[in-house]
Amino acid sequence: MNLIDKLRWRYATKKFDPDRSVSAQDLECLKEAVRLSVSSFGIQPYKVIIIENKEIKKALVEASMGQQQVADASHLFVFCNYTRDFDRQVDDYIEKIIEAQGKGSTEVRNYGESIKASLRKKSPEERERWAEKQTYLALNNLLVACAELKIDACPMEGFDKEVYNQMLGLDEQGLNANLIAPIGYRSKDDKAMSRKKIRKSKEELFEMA
Amino acid sequence: MNLIDKLRWRYATKKFDPDRSVSAQDLECLKEAVRLSVSSFGIQPYKVIIIENKEIKKALVEASMGQQQVADASHLFVFCNYTRDFDRQVDDYIEKIIEAQGKGSTEVRNYGESIKASLRKKSPEERERWAEKQTYLALNNLLVACAELKIDACPMEGFDKEVYNQMLGLDEQGLNANLIAPIGYRSKDDKAMSRKKIRKSKEELFEMA
Repeated sequence: MNLIDKLRWRYATKKFDPDRSVSAQDLECLKEAVRLSVSSFGIQPYKVIIIENKEIKKALVEASMGQQQVADASHLFVFCNYTRDFDRQVDDYIEKIIEAQGKGSTEVRNYGESIKASLRKKSPEERERWAEKQTYLALNNLLVACAELKIDACPMEGFDKEVYNQMLGLDEQGLNANLIAPIGYRSKDDKAMSRKKIRKSKEELFEMA
Repeated sequence: MNLIDKLRWRYATKKFDPDRSVSAQDLECLKEAVRLSVSSFGIQPYKVIIIENKEIKKALVEASMGQQQVADASHLFVFCNYTRDFDRQVDDYIEKIIEAQGKGSTEVRNYGESIKASLRKKSPEERERWAEKQTYLALNNLLVACAELKIDACPMEGFDKEVYNQMLGLDEQGLNANLIAPIGYRSKDDKAMSRKKIRKSKEELFEMA
């Protein structure tokens, strides 16, 4: 199975080659894979900032627990969930369905209202958590796409979100930096590449019923 | 790009053919893809229940907002995050690293303690949320693996977790049903298969910097 080979090839890259860049063509493939991610109701309640600018990447290292990958990688993907404007997200989605179907819209609009009602039942905190969760699906598609193109990546949860939000002007857009992934090419002397992949065994992980 | 073709092929299957089953061989491939999922610190703080038993699947339909896919699909994957015992999860992980490296363990044990300290800083609520999030990465690997094997799937967040937890005896194992995915083969008359896939445009989704 192709996917299994890809998943075995990839690893959380600790040291990138700062002189190698991901091509524009590969970058478009990565974006398309992320774009096709599944999400709750299909809403995709997030935005993805892709940072190539060296100065910005360098400035974000400190807020990334000092992890140099953020500066050395070719591109830094920042997955940002929306923190507000969910009704607008739903409206945009519903408009797309109506456009795609090219027909009567009452049923679809009612569906949109039911999604909005379901989201309104959540507390603001729960809504934000719901949006955060969807970014994990998009991140995972990025990781699989990178592995297919033999592009290295290092997914990270551990960084100072408040600093990211402030530095990237995310607050005013109603966005929150939730996950990051520097991508590019491993440095030849990255010791992490030779470490054995550690995973739970099938026996530990699965229960059949 | 293979992945993009797979992502375009797949869709949230609304009606499964109840007479078709996923083979034992394919099921092992799916499990291996899920097993290789990335997770925060590599901890994989979850368990996956795979239900083939027709009676159990049928009994879960009501708690799944009446969605018949749960009964008709070949197998129902239930992704369950741990709600407690996180120290033990970390210890198990550290033991695996020590075993894989076959050498001095002080540094690795210290690393384990630092993970535990980091998890202890979270409130019980935050820890549970952290564990929940990791299941999205595993679910996404399942979806990609299914698409590669031309197996249909329908990922779902919307079901009654309390009823699942009670019916599957998850509470007493310190587990919580967080995400489900019936998998199998589409019914020939599933109208959902011909619906156009709705996604944000690249322009809406990405911002370059």
